[in-house]
Amino acid sequence: MPDANATAENAGALALFSGGQDSTTCLAWALARFPHVETIGFDYGQRHRVELDRRAGLREGLARISPLWKERLGEDHTISIEALGAISETALTRDVEIAFNATGLPNTFVPGRNIVFLTFAAALCYRRGLSHIVAGMCETDYSGYPDCRNETIRAVEAALALGMDRTFAIHTPLMWIDKAATWALAEELGGEALVQLIRDETHTCYLGERGARFDWGYGCGECPACRLRAAGWERYVAGRFGG
Amino acid sequence: MPDANATAENAGALALFSGGQDSTTCLAWALARFPHVETIGFDYGQRHRVELDRRAGLREGLARISPLWKERLGEDHTISIEALGAISETALTRDVEIAFNATGLPNTFVPGRNIVFLTFAAALCYRRGLSHIVAGMCETDYSGYPDCRNETIRAVEAALALGMDRTFAIHTPLMWIDKAATWALAEELGGEALVQLIRDETHTCYLGERGARFDWGYGCGECPACRLRAAGWERYVAGRFGG
Repeated sequence: MPDANATAENAGALALFSGGQDSTTCLAWALARFPHVETIGFDYGQRHRVELDRRAGLREGLARISPLWKERLGEDHTISIEALGAISETALTRDVEIAFNATGLPNTFVPGRNIVFLTFAAALCYRRGLSHIVAGMCETDYSGYPDCRNETIRAVEAALALGMDRTFAIHTPLMWIDKAATWALAEELGGEALVQLIRDETHTCYLGERGARFDWGYGCGECPACRLRAAGWERYVAGRFGG
Repeated sequence: MPDANATAENAGALALFSGGQDSTTCLAWALARFPHVETIGFDYGQRHRVELDRRAGLREGLARISPLWKERLGEDHTISIEALGAISETALTRDVEIAFNATGLPNTFVPGRNIVFLTFAAALCYRRGLSHIVAGMCETDYSGYPDCRNETIRAVEAALALGMDRTFAIHTPLMWIDKAATWALAEELGGEALVQLIRDETHTCYLGERGARFDWGYGCGECPACRLRAAGWERYVAGRFGG
């Protein structure tokens, strides 16, 4: 396996990989570009932790799709940050919930979550000699989360460069595309095999269960995440066969 | 107790409070300025965790010094971030240590530690309705840690404002003063009582032991932290009585 430290350009990457549709597409995107790609997943007591359990199988699936990807795929890291959940719970113990609702954000919003993820990712890159971070933040389906905005990601990139005295490029290949285009990107990167892998093996449903089988994968079919995924799939299929 | 949410200016503060000399001085600085001050401490498996054990006693000591401080002192929060330690250990498992040493940073450097601390602090402020963060970062005794620099702190402040869509002011009262001036600041804030409290009850020694008693407090007297503390105390005393 090529060692990122051995390349002149220090071209190793770390992909934020939760096991969902977006981060799996991003991991494929990284494998298509960088000679060495490690993965990082965060366990912070999220409700849909079943997503995390899918990571090993997805990594194996990606390795089966392409010998080059198999060669490039490096170590997986799982980081436990229970403190993120603890801080969220704090909201339930104090009379400030109305103020949060007034901002239009759900009570489940974990403030600064992506900043924490990116900072831990950069710390790991620092330690592992990796220079690129690949992450699935997206403004297009921006659900009111300010830490998904491109402006925020760029500010974090600048703060990390100063705080670690080293440059990490943060790549967000999904920033400006919608869910239909994310499926199309998967097809472009890995053909029908990757589309099938993502459809059948990634988890999106908020309820944390595999549920029933739909055209677009498994889930409850009712929650906002399932509906967003179904709508994206339908637009993707319509564009592919009907466009 | 006044509730920060009840004030028009939303003037509540959160002080990063490790139980050391610097953060105890910063907590006193915050108590002298803000109507409501909560404290946050981080447990990340640091070697000198004895420092954390001193926090409760120091909070009691500060409350005894001034009835106003007692009234203003709010809840204490301890956040466990073991992942920070886990990422540091990663260095020991890979052949990249020479590169780190070449930067002049010790192997114990935890990359981005202060960015993680400030992000968690801001998340807690968000949840608790607090607007000010008080932290002990200092450029003067800057040991090569890029995340202590004022430039880094300002970049993090900007990234947090974007990522949480809310403004948090980060105050670093020690940024431009040396250890002698930190003692003088304590005297200014809380007189001889505060100087005594900090001298006798804060922990600085890297070895994590109370050790012997010196003019400047307890410690091994030999490690870099003890020597820095001793030198600062001597300059402070010389300035007070001999200047």
